[in-house]
Amino acid sequence: VDRVASLSAADESSLSFLANPIFRRELAKTRAGVVVLAPEYVDECPVDCLICANPYATFARIAAMLHPRARRAPGIDATAAVAPDATVAATAFVGAQATIGARAALGERVEIGAGSVVADDAKIGEDTRLAERVVICSGVEVGRRCTIHPGAVIGADGFGFAQDEREGWVKIPQIGGVSIGDDVEIGANTTIDRGTIEDTVIEAGVKLDNLVQIAHNVRIGEHTIMAAMSGAAGSTTIGKRCMIGGGAVLINHISVCDDVMFLFRSVVTKSVDKLGVYSGVLPAEEAGQWRRNAARFRQLDGFAERLRRAERELRALAGKGAS
Amino acid sequence: VDRVASLSAADESSLSFLANPIFRRELAKTRAGVVVLAPEYVDECPVDCLICANPYATFARIAAMLHPRARRAPGIDATAAVAPDATVAATAFVGAQATIGARAALGERVEIGAGSVVADDAKIGEDTRLAERVVICSGVEVGRRCTIHPGAVIGADGFGFAQDEREGWVKIPQIGGVSIGDDVEIGANTTIDRGTIEDTVIEAGVKLDNLVQIAHNVRIGEHTIMAAMSGAAGSTTIGKRCMIGGGAVLINHISVCDDVMFLFRSVVTKSVDKLGVYSGVLPAEEAGQWRRNAARFRQLDGFAERLRRAERELRALAGKGAS
Amino acid sequence: VDRVASLSAADESSLSFLANPIFRRELAKTRAGVVVLAPEYVDECPVDCLICANPYATFARIAAMLHPRARRAPGIDATAAVAPDATVAATAFVGAQATIGARAALGERVEIGAGSVVADDAKIGEDTRLAERVVICSGVEVGRRCTIHPGAVIGADGFGFAQDEREGWVKIPQIGGVSIGDDVEIGANTTIDRGTIEDTVIEAGVKLDNLVQIAHNVRIGEHTIMAAMSGAAGSTTIGKRCMIGGGAVLINHISVCDDVMFLFRSVVTKSVDKLGVYSGVLPAEEAGQWRRNAARFRQLDGFAERLRRAERELRALAGKGAS
Repeated sequence: VDRVASLSAADESSLSFLANPIFRRELAKTRAGVVVLAPEYVDECPVDCLICANPYATFARIAAMLHPRARRAPGIDATAAVAPDATVAATAFVGAQATIGARAALGERVEIGAGSVVADDAKIGEDTRLAERVVICSGVEVGRRCTIHPGAVIGADGFGFAQDEREGWVKIPQIGGVSIGDDVEIGANTTIDRGTIEDTVIEAGVKLDNLVQIAHNVRIGEHTIMAAMSGAAGSTTIGKRCMIGGGAVLINHISVCDDVMFLFRSVVTKSVDKLGVYSGVLPAEEAGQWRRNAARFRQLDGFAERLRRAERELRALAGKGAS
Repeated sequence: VDRVASLSAADESSLSFLANPIFRRELAKTRAGVVVLAPEYVDECPVDCLICANPYATFARIAAMLHPRARRAPGIDATAAVAPDATVAATAFVGAQATIGARAALGERVEIGAGSVVADDAKIGEDTRLAERVVICSGVEVGRRCTIHPGAVIGADGFGFAQDEREGWVKIPQIGGVSIGDDVEIGANTTIDRGTIEDTVIEAGVKLDNLVQIAHNVRIGEHTIMAAMSGAAGSTTIGKRCMIGGGAVLINHISVCDDVMFLFRSVVTKSVDKLGVYSGVLPAEEAGQWRRNAARFRQLDGFAERLRRAERELRALAGKGAS
Repeated sequence: VDRVASLSAADESSLSFLANPIFRRELAKTRAGVVVLAPEYVDECPVDCLICANPYATFARIAAMLHPRARRAPGIDATAAVAPDATVAATAFVGAQATIGARAALGERVEIGAGSVVADDAKIGEDTRLAERVVICSGVEVGRRCTIHPGAVIGADGFGFAQDEREGWVKIPQIGGVSIGDDVEIGANTTIDRGTIEDTVIEAGVKLDNLVQIAHNVRIGEHTIMAAMSGAAGSTTIGKRCMIGGGAVLINHISVCDDVMFLFRSVVTKSVDKLGVYSGVLPAEEAGQWRRNAARFRQLDGFAERLRRAERELRALAGKGAS
């Protein structure tokens, strides 16, 4: 095999996989060269298979070997603007129209995509890749082996204003930074604000999807993952290995412990100190209960009618009882 | 007439229109040179009018004639970075600070705005316009006559990771592309991710507003329109001529048939195979029923009280009955 | 004191503050040189204090003095692309890879960050700062002393299409502009669309957080503040000094009077003409009532059961009564 493909599109030279049982029907018909799957599906596989405990992760590793990302050859494009006192490793690549600010530092094998900006005093760790048109604001520190997708903005001012009778809003200077750990991935057009006084912190292994908003002074624990359009308001602390669903938001300066999952579009308004799956709003609640309540919501208009009728009948009965 | 204006601001040299009945009151007072309107409003129009079945579409066409967008003169700005093996049509325009990657191809009359990036191997069809600072990632194909607004990112990696006990999250290489049909419009800071193995597909005539998120492997059918801040999670299939309201999201790998409308901020979690208007959550329901339920939600605290009282009275009556 | 710090991190040379009572516990333990606080907390402060009516605003002003933002030295970077007929004040700064379009005008002490684009005919008022990679589209006017954060897009086309049987969607030309008042702050990757015919207007002192969407023809009154991921759909009018919570949206061409607050993720679908605090959906309601209803939502599945039981008992009682 020399490439990966879906079960249905695979041919003899393709490797495919079965990780989600909803694709089981396609397994019986596949013409893949090899299928990566868990032991329980071996009998259903019409072709060669590679049996393992975690087929999705195994597939991921094989796919990365079959389809390695092309590395940019080291060097600085002639159209890039690199400050004379910036430090750029000899093995780093700086793309067309990129800007590297004063005293910024790019580690070994760093890749800076076309049009990206690494502002003054920012530091980019070894093997990290900024895609096209990323902005790393001044003083931000990014770890090693990170991937930052186009349009992401790391280190803009946090949203802090004091209300004042005379002047409207007085800006609170945002003098903290942003610290991004190793092996972090940050999606397209996602925004991570710098801290007010101390740093906003994204720990190692965190994965953020597109259009995510991380406000000032947030701390996100190792290996936590946040899906698209989710957000953490100012001073939220999120534990390790949490999973935040699409569009879910955490507000009110709360803390969330390790290993918590919030379903899509949850609004989390109170701290959570017990691992589990949560959903809904004000505050998020255990997911099973929320699903039942949400299902009942669809019957709400009917309930109102039934309640009114029950009350009427009660009055009638009470009238009889009183008579 | 030589320009367009609203009914209230129009003067003798302006063309105006009545498409939404809520502006009917302004018709009687207008001083426009001509008003485009439907036959039923002719009697209320104090000035010349142009009668047609679809005044809004007619107005759009006349407005485009009176206010044509200035085309950029062909040529490549001196500050643009164009790879030597890129193909740029002689009639195309490449703006300041733009980057055109290796083997990329720009068709006839393409316009690339200032600071935009067309990465390696990407293809831009005839008459398509990228506004300022758009990113078209490597290998993405954009059709003809498209408009892509500033900050949009087409073709960043999809969000795919396999969970692994030892390593946290293992990235699934995203080796598919993005295919954008003809006559597509994509809003500012909208993100469309590339497919995992096959392409993410946006069919002809689709219109996406600002800050929309389209995840990997999504397919959007012809002439579907999605309002601001809406989104489609991974592997969603949306039919033709659908209308997705602002902030609405589709999740769970679902399919939606043609001609479906989802109201603002719907959360669609199950496939829809019948045309209609839907709203709400888990799964989206027929819109009229949802509106009634949502109205009842506002009375929910009162219901709880009434239910408690009814139960108390029942116990009292039952006690009497038993006695 | 020569810097600011949080109560817990402050040392003798730091100034700190107490504005939110939830940090009161940290006051007793602080080692700050000076603490800015309200008179009622003086007795609890173990160190020197600066007493004032509005400690947060006072702190903001002192912090701005202790940590002034470094101004860029005037001048145009060698890699910037400035149109020959643009007007750039001698005291203005234009950063690396920036683009200034034809007939654009930059006032005194304006700063244009790396990679930003000021398109043709746009005007930037005195002392305004564009951070990195901002897009100001053609003809947009920005006031004085504004701050616009990275990735913001001001003046992309509004989302306007007329439905047409034959052609799908016909674009309505968006020929209005955007007018931004003085002292406005606009967050990272926020989008503000140009008007269809007249201008979209952001009045003086407005503050917009990250990833906010402002559609065409919106008007936002002075000193209104909108938190992250909130939005105003086309033709919304918002009064002065309003506070729009994170993720809240206003739709349906509505008007909101001065001094209204909408809590996080409200969906406002009807005009509001009375100052107050609102929340929830369809239309937003007074916040206290909404909180009660939302709390009841968590009991909804239980209500359904209780209602069914009450109905059964009623039938039993009625049966007895009838016999």
